[in-house]
Amino acid sequence: MYWLKRKMKKVNWRLIANMNGYVLICLGLLMVLPLICSLLYKEKVVYDFLITIAICLLVGFALSRIRLDRKDYFARDGMIAVGLCWITASLFGCLPYFISQEIPSFVDCFFEAVSGFTTTGSSIVPSVEELSKGILFWRSFTHWIGGMGILVFILAFFPKSNDRSMHIMRAEAPGPVIGKLVPRIQQSAMILYVMYMGLTLLCIVFLLAGGMPLFDTLCYTFGTAGTGGFSISSLSVGAYNNVYFEVVITVFMLLFGVNFNLYYFLFLKNFKQIFKNEELRMYLFVVFSCIILITLNISHMYGGILEGLRYASFQVATIISTTGYATTDFNLWPMFSKGILLLLMVLGACAGSTAGGIKVSRFVIILKKIRLDIQRLVHPQKVEAITMDGKVVDDSVVSQIMAYFGCFMLILFACIFLVSLDNLDFETTVSSVFTCIGNVGPAFGLAGPMGNFAMYSDFSKLVLSFAMLVGRLEIYPVLIFLFPLFKLPDMCRRKKFNKMD
Amino acid sequence: MYWLKRKMKKVNWRLIANMNGYVLICLGLLMVLPLICSLLYKEKVVYDFLITIAICLLVGFALSRIRLDRKDYFARDGMIAVGLCWITASLFGCLPYFISQEIPSFVDCFFEAVSGFTTTGSSIVPSVEELSKGILFWRSFTHWIGGMGILVFILAFFPKSNDRSMHIMRAEAPGPVIGKLVPRIQQSAMILYVMYMGLTLLCIVFLLAGGMPLFDTLCYTFGTAGTGGFSISSLSVGAYNNVYFEVVITVFMLLFGVNFNLYYFLFLKNFKQIFKNEELRMYLFVVFSCIILITLNISHMYGGILEGLRYASFQVATIISTTGYATTDFNLWPMFSKGILLLLMVLGACAGSTAGGIKVSRFVIILKKIRLDIQRLVHPQKVEAITMDGKVVDDSVVSQIMAYFGCFMLILFACIFLVSLDNLDFETTVSSVFTCIGNVGPAFGLAGPMGNFAMYSDFSKLVLSFAMLVGRLEIYPVLIFLFPLFKLPDMCRRKKFNKMD
Repeated sequence: MYWLKRKMKKVNWRLIANMNGYVLICLGLLMVLPLICSLLYKEKVVYDFLITIAICLLVGFALSRIRLDRKDYFARDGMIAVGLCWITASLFGCLPYFISQEIPSFVDCFFEAVSGFTTTGSSIVPSVEELSKGILFWRSFTHWIGGMGILVFILAFFPKSNDRSMHIMRAEAPGPVIGKLVPRIQQSAMILYVMYMGLTLLCIVFLLAGGMPLFDTLCYTFGTAGTGGFSISSLSVGAYNNVYFEVVITVFMLLFGVNFNLYYFLFLKNFKQIFKNEELRMYLFVVFSCIILITLNISHMYGGILEGLRYASFQVATIISTTGYATTDFNLWPMFSKGILLLLMVLGACAGSTAGGIKVSRFVIILKKIRLDIQRLVHPQKVEAITMDGKVVDDSVVSQIMAYFGCFMLILFACIFLVSLDNLDFETTVSSVFTCIGNVGPAFGLAGPMGNFAMYSDFSKLVLSFAMLVGRLEIYPVLIFLFPLFKLPDMCRRKKFNKMD
Repeated sequence: MYWLKRKMKKVNWRLIANMNGYVLICLGLLMVLPLICSLLYKEKVVYDFLITIAICLLVGFALSRIRLDRKDYFARDGMIAVGLCWITASLFGCLPYFISQEIPSFVDCFFEAVSGFTTTGSSIVPSVEELSKGILFWRSFTHWIGGMGILVFILAFFPKSNDRSMHIMRAEAPGPVIGKLVPRIQQSAMILYVMYMGLTLLCIVFLLAGGMPLFDTLCYTFGTAGTGGFSISSLSVGAYNNVYFEVVITVFMLLFGVNFNLYYFLFLKNFKQIFKNEELRMYLFVVFSCIILITLNISHMYGGILEGLRYASFQVATIISTTGYATTDFNLWPMFSKGILLLLMVLGACAGSTAGGIKVSRFVIILKKIRLDIQRLVHPQKVEAITMDGKVVDDSVVSQIMAYFGCFMLILFACIFLVSLDNLDFETTVSSVFTCIGNVGPAFGLAGPMGNFAMYSDFSKLVLSFAMLVGRLEIYPVLIFLFPLFKLPDMCRRKKFNKMD
């Protein structure tokens, strides 16, 4: 580990430890909610939550008291901090599952926690009905915490943050360009969270109005808001067989897949900015065309266009917003519909939303880049730039996005390669990686909406957890930890050169 | 079609028609070989070849006599010419199959011809043993013609070419950078073909020495040299169950996957250039590590490490060189081995070889680019460039390669989407597109090494033909024909703007 230390000596580790401390304190405080829930239901799991809260607060306070020796702080440190904080949050957030032994294996607990915080919603629990209410609440609540990001939460509500925190916001919030809404970063973060809470409340109200029990409403709203997908029934939302619930959840899943900046513009009554937004247009276009295509493809299975439309809309919304609820076993759908869902899994929704995937805006820019390349072949003399929402997109941003996409695909392939060691069938293996890296939740085959991820080995569960983190944190905050690996070939070469001298 | 014409008015269509004429003449002359073969075997198919040769020569002469009105000629024209010539070659090259009615449907014939010329080797023929010798010979011979490129062939052996032909060479020869071997382009083409013929001859000699019948030797050598994969037996090379043949074919498949420039350096005794070649090192590294991994994974199926090694080496060589022969039904292998083969399908071998896929050199540059991006995160102040073989790779080349990769993946997804309409299983659908765009041949599932592509609809066969052309011609010469489609959104927008005025 000598060279790892040497390379990273300039990283402000103390500050990062500090931040991890705040994350743990925050986590401990947030865990009071599931604690209350389990108190109300008079469950044994209360004690497990108390122990976890104590651990979180203790370790958190200890870390947060580490004294800083310097204040400098770079983009790299932001990346490392975000990557570490998410791993810390998952390691401590999975303690209730483990201490209560409702999920016996620690790797399973970790997988479930990562799946929660990254808003993926892939589960290793064979029958969720056996879990206690407190644990179910916490599982869904991790989606809500992870949706907008725990660090952004800290930025918003802890007083200490300053302008260098932009690096954190950039590293944690999804999408290629995160705009500051207002000049002060803390205010931006708070506005985001206020809108997030507002929309969450609205969803709760609508579901309660339809007669959904309060506990169910909270769990499903947390999953919808964070675009997570953990459910409190093996049949997911399909268990209610209630069109009203399905419509409400469909609409809110799509709403949480929209860039939150647009809601701020809506609030400011700046409608022009909203209509100008190309990403939103493309998002809606993709949603509606996929719903139509799938409806036509599956109607015969449900005995009518209307029923087909009902299932198609819900499933398209759930997959493109990377939520992952289900009202029907889409694993049984024709390959064409499954093909569409597979593509939506990696596409994801808008940047700046709580959804995962590559994001529509990146996709639009990639399409424009390809179009431009071909235009340049046809008219080499013409100089044209890529524009988005009427503004020119910088060449460096375009090339970053292409690199991002390349990186995304390579990691996808690498994960398929590693997960295939489990010797499950082709469909399960490939679609599991797609669903995890896209932060969706259900896959096809054995890991379909009515299945789960329990059959995977511990190794594969860790690989899939890695894929989920890569998807949620948009690659670099996770990949930066693999940096020493990238240095290895250089090291070998240098050694060889020395020998030759 | 008005705007198509308007946009393309500057394209030198007459020159392109000319080139198509030469291609047809060339094709007619090359078809004399299968004609002789069927004469020797006294088959009825002789007349079908005669008819086809007559058609090719007639149409070819007519097109080649079109008088040029100007001589200017751009990269774009080279792209269009190459794209059209390949489609023309496939349309006329499939005539023997259709006229002889050995393959009754024209779409099937076209698929088979595209699969031949693009050196893919995916077949729709359920039992190849029923085809006549002449047709079998022609099928395999199309691999050899397509391997190095029919236009490069014309460049090499028709006297008229000049320096603008570089555009053609660039568009047709695989790989990101095709170096001129010698200052004159015609000589470069000729050197390439002489080396190609030399290696082909060597392969023939080795196979004959092992006692393979002459007809079989020629067919398998054509497939090996072009890295095609059409076979003359349903069991492919496995039918012989002969270790010597397998070793010879393995070695030659790997040799034909190496950049031909290196053979020229070998000829010039410039060994330094060969050792410096990073692509070759990576290629060999991938080959050997995959062989070891698969051997360990499959040995228990074949009752021993040695037998495992035998099947693993052959299959790794056949897939990475994108040939597509088989000595065993690797569709029955464990998922890990299939996962490796799936990755090798899109990877392909070296640039400047006859193999398909993304090419190892592009892969190396993509890896280096990702590494550089992470390095920049860790050390933002450091300025480093990507190097390949000790030379700095220009930023524009790197961004082209990233765009290429992005485009490749998008087309891959789009084809999966279209082919999924056939409602075959997940594995068959996804792996068929992988194998076609990678110009490999066999896929998994129903389209596995012991299966074929007959169950696909005509629509899917055309989509897969498109994928094969995209793979062989490296996207742009095919995509340029879709350019008008890319213009559509602009047109609509402009119309709307006018209305708003």
